[in-house]
Amino acid sequence: MKAPLAFSLEATRGAARAGRLVLPHAVVPTPVFMAVGTRATVKACTTDQVVDTGTRILLGNTFHLGLKPGAERVAAAGGLHAFARWPHAMLTDSGGYQVFSLADLRRLGEEGVRFKSPYDGTLLELTPERSIEIQNLLGADIIMAFDECAPYPATREAVLAAVERTTRWAERCLRAHARPDAQALFGIVQGGVHADLRARSADALVAMDFPGYAIGGLSVGEGPERMDATLEATCPLLPEDRPRYLMGVGKPEDLVRAVLRGVDMFDCALPTRNARNGEVFLWPRRYLRLKHARYRDDHRVIDPLCDCLACRTGVKRSYLAHLLRVDEIAGLTYCSLHNLRFYQRLMQRLRREIVAGTLDAFRAEFFAPEGSGQPAD
Amino acid sequence: MKAPLAFSLEATRGAARAGRLVLPHAVVPTPVFMAVGTRATVKACTTDQVVDTGTRILLGNTFHLGLKPGAERVAAAGGLHAFARWPHAMLTDSGGYQVFSLADLRRLGEEGVRFKSPYDGTLLELTPERSIEIQNLLGADIIMAFDECAPYPATREAVLAAVERTTRWAERCLRAHARPDAQALFGIVQGGVHADLRARSADALVAMDFPGYAIGGLSVGEGPERMDATLEATCPLLPEDRPRYLMGVGKPEDLVRAVLRGVDMFDCALPTRNARNGEVFLWPRRYLRLKHARYRDDHRVIDPLCDCLACRTGVKRSYLAHLLRVDEIAGLTYCSLHNLRFYQRLMQRLRREIVAGTLDAFRAEFFAPEGSGQPAD
Repeated sequence: MKAPLAFSLEATRGAARAGRLVLPHAVVPTPVFMAVGTRATVKACTTDQVVDTGTRILLGNTFHLGLKPGAERVAAAGGLHAFARWPHAMLTDSGGYQVFSLADLRRLGEEGVRFKSPYDGTLLELTPERSIEIQNLLGADIIMAFDECAPYPATREAVLAAVERTTRWAERCLRAHARPDAQALFGIVQGGVHADLRARSADALVAMDFPGYAIGGLSVGEGPERMDATLEATCPLLPEDRPRYLMGVGKPEDLVRAVLRGVDMFDCALPTRNARNGEVFLWPRRYLRLKHARYRDDHRVIDPLCDCLACRTGVKRSYLAHLLRVDEIAGLTYCSLHNLRFYQRLMQRLRREIVAGTLDAFRAEFFAPEGSGQPAD
Repeated sequence: MKAPLAFSLEATRGAARAGRLVLPHAVVPTPVFMAVGTRATVKACTTDQVVDTGTRILLGNTFHLGLKPGAERVAAAGGLHAFARWPHAMLTDSGGYQVFSLADLRRLGEEGVRFKSPYDGTLLELTPERSIEIQNLLGADIIMAFDECAPYPATREAVLAAVERTTRWAERCLRAHARPDAQALFGIVQGGVHADLRARSADALVAMDFPGYAIGGLSVGEGPERMDATLEATCPLLPEDRPRYLMGVGKPEDLVRAVLRGVDMFDCALPTRNARNGEVFLWPRRYLRLKHARYRDDHRVIDPLCDCLACRTGVKRSYLAHLLRVDEIAGLTYCSLHNLRFYQRLMQRLRREIVAGTLDAFRAEFFAPEGSGQPAD
């Protein structure tokens, strides 16, 4: 059986890794940031604009796409790649996170989750088998196991129970996966901030031999120190030759800290969500709040060294401030593209520093005190 | 003094004209459709996307831009071209139409119009002199006289009074215009559906020797027959060597009917406004309502012969239907770009038929009964 994923390491520096991920629809240098396209589109951007940011993996969402337009309809369109005309790789998450956080939960049991549709109140069920069936129909390059993500904070007992159920559900996902030659199924390590529970989860999943491993249940309020510690405890337990994906993380500094600890893949709605609120990133850890009054008369581009659509075509901060203040969509688009490009450039830079063996100097520059997480100017 | 506008006719066919409009920022073949960018942006589109539709003149709005971000602020940014990074020609309307239709009017008098700002309720005044001052600060290639547009229907006396005031205000606009070497000021013919009042208005304005003439106060509910008759009465009264601009019109068939009667320039929010409601145009006079249930499973592009971003990159009706149904912005963008491109192609086609002398055959095809204004499919 042909493997849908090949991963190789090109260089390492301490725990940090520079790799290459070969997928059916793209060859992707790692570390990689994947753009969030929940409903088969990155919010406020057209497909060609997202491609232009350098994005090579786009995320779709099983929970949302399974409800609307429906997995069978997407399959009839030729799958998610054809439906959204996305020319590179895609990943779909399993819907687990959304069903626990967004839906009106009716029952959580060993079989799966019953919930009410947020669109029309219909009672629906998502199980490991149905999640994989939907993801097989959507056809992304990478699909995710259906997991139980314990809330944070939770009792140790609750986290342990979620780990055990996630393990059992992972086995069911593996059995249900009908297209292992075309789609790589990743397991998801749970265990909260408990190193021993992370180890318990990782050991069980590694024994199942997934082509890649995600680390779930972080960036849920535990804070940077606990996230760092959890990554330091978890990454060494995962096979060196498989990609490691930290789900739903995060701010630029979160990504750098996680790369330094051995993570290869990221996704997060933060760059586009913050962009729609007028927050755009500046190197290395600053941002502008373009809705602030001062930017109405600031006729510079966001960042003269940036090559995003907005910066390279000379879109001024004053113009963006105007667009955002009068609720014009183009403002959301320009800011989203800038932030997506910022994340892509950050990943490229990290990779280059790892390959060049200059990661320590980069870390010192990136985390220098003057580059604080406060608004610029 | 250097003239900011040169207009030449390349071919005529009956009353229809194919011309060339030379402006400070663009050489524009006519007939031309100008995209509406009220707040210095076409809604839901980035500047480069609008350029890509073939748009060569973009409209800005004195009423809206004068309020936000303010004309002085735009001037400090280098003018409207620099502020919006628009590389081609621009036109600003005078604010007359908006002040009469959108604002909370406080007093209309000979001096001008007092109104309450829709943003913060401040009492403001727009006069011919302030309208021109704002337009001089904005710096568009073409600026418009501040006129009084009578409501429809109105008594003959009210229309006559509006004509007379529009004439007096036009003189004040001419006197106030501080940049006649850089910006071409157009007069606006009023007179409702009364041929004699249109003649009275046109004669007075033609005597003032404007570089171009607009026809205002149409497409306000008078219907196609009265609009046709008014154009047939008005166009012959305007100098053959000056461009004629029918303001705020309209549907594709309205543009064709007006070109056949001698109009050279158009603007209308309809293609982008309808696009945001999921209505996209098909050749020659049909449209699709993409929110209709049937399009959820229609995996064709809008029009395989169209070269807009959506059609040329294979964006499916089913994908657009999905985006529109889940309120994703990309759906608005794709539909807006399609409709803008449709209007540009319609103008190109009309020009080619006029130059080739085949306008009669084109008219027969365009208005053939099967090409009704009803939804397609």
